[in-house]
Amino acid sequence: MDAIDDLVKLLSRLPGVGSKSAARMTYRLIGTDPNYNRRLGEAISTLQERIHRCTICGSFTETDPCPICQDEKRDRSIMCVVEQPQDVLTIQNSGIYSGLFHVLGGAISPLNSIGPDQLSFSALRKRIQEGDFKEIIIATNPNEEGDITALYIKRMFKDSGLKITRLAAGLPIGGDLEYADRRTLEISLRSRMDM
Amino acid sequence: MDAIDDLVKLLSRLPGVGSKSAARMTYRLIGTDPNYNRRLGEAISTLQERIHRCTICGSFTETDPCPICQDEKRDRSIMCVVEQPQDVLTIQNSGIYSGLFHVLGGAISPLNSIGPDQLSFSALRKRIQEGDFKEIIIATNPNEEGDITALYIKRMFKDSGLKITRLAAGLPIGGDLEYADRRTLEISLRSRMDM
Repeated sequence: MDAIDDLVKLLSRLPGVGSKSAARMTYRLIGTDPNYNRRLGEAISTLQERIHRCTICGSFTETDPCPICQDEKRDRSIMCVVEQPQDVLTIQNSGIYSGLFHVLGGAISPLNSIGPDQLSFSALRKRIQEGDFKEIIIATNPNEEGDITALYIKRMFKDSGLKITRLAAGLPIGGDLEYADRRTLEISLRSRMDM
Repeated sequence: MDAIDDLVKLLSRLPGVGSKSAARMTYRLIGTDPNYNRRLGEAISTLQERIHRCTICGSFTETDPCPICQDEKRDRSIMCVVEQPQDVLTIQNSGIYSGLFHVLGGAISPLNSIGPDQLSFSALRKRIQEGDFKEIIIATNPNEEGDITALYIKRMFKDSGLKITRLAAGLPIGGDLEYADRRTLEISLRSRMDM
């Protein structure tokens, strides 16, 4: 049963997929609509040929520049800085932001020897200088590396006269206080808001 | 980002994969070794062309008869009857059984209008009659439908003089054979009981 074993092993390498769920997927694929398998196989095989980095913002796109950078209806006075291309999709899907994006390609991490030079800060500086921005929203992750990176961006633009903000950290909406970790609780207590 | 959305939607249709884990897989696939994507895509696209039912036992195979049915070293006096092709792989992978298999294609289920006629009982009867068997091990799932099916098999061969056994309790009741761990499977096979 080589074809089955092969596929189980390949699927097991996907994030969050163990050998049992890979086997379950494989058996589903044996019994499913052949047209679906063909489409899925094709979508995986051709993904990297179709998806590239936008040369302006650094997010994933099929066209260059990406649809967001090309869209004249977007608010070109706000720049949202994120770590990864997938963060663009996350914020886009929320439907509550209509400005531009800049993808750093990661976060500053002394522990992993990732310094500012390895991230797209010079492109960010150039875009800010050449554009007509009023605000930079820092949307790096709420962890130590994201904090260092946010601080770095804040310092980089401290004399620019731009408003510099960062996504609020706190309790996740719909969550339970009981399940909040100590660090989140501490931050949400420190930045408590008037009611 | 159509290529990404397409793949996320396709992956979301796999069992146990929600839209968030599908997105996570997709982003992993964008950044991974292109050779892996090509192999995975190919394995999915060609799976159904490569995998067929063995005309003897009914399990999934690339050759017909399947390697198990062809293997002269296996114990041809014991027949293990399972519901699904994936159950063959599960028992095979445990490495504790060296007899033959017969795949019914499901279980008798009055609730889902699945009667004995829709399952491969006549092929089973024929194989038992023509072979030189001493024992039939019933390895249907430990749930109501598996119980009904086991009883049906027991009655079918009650005058055959064959020893008829069933995998022991020890398998979690209401569960699926496919998800049994090796140890549980081994214990239930070793302590199989007369029916």
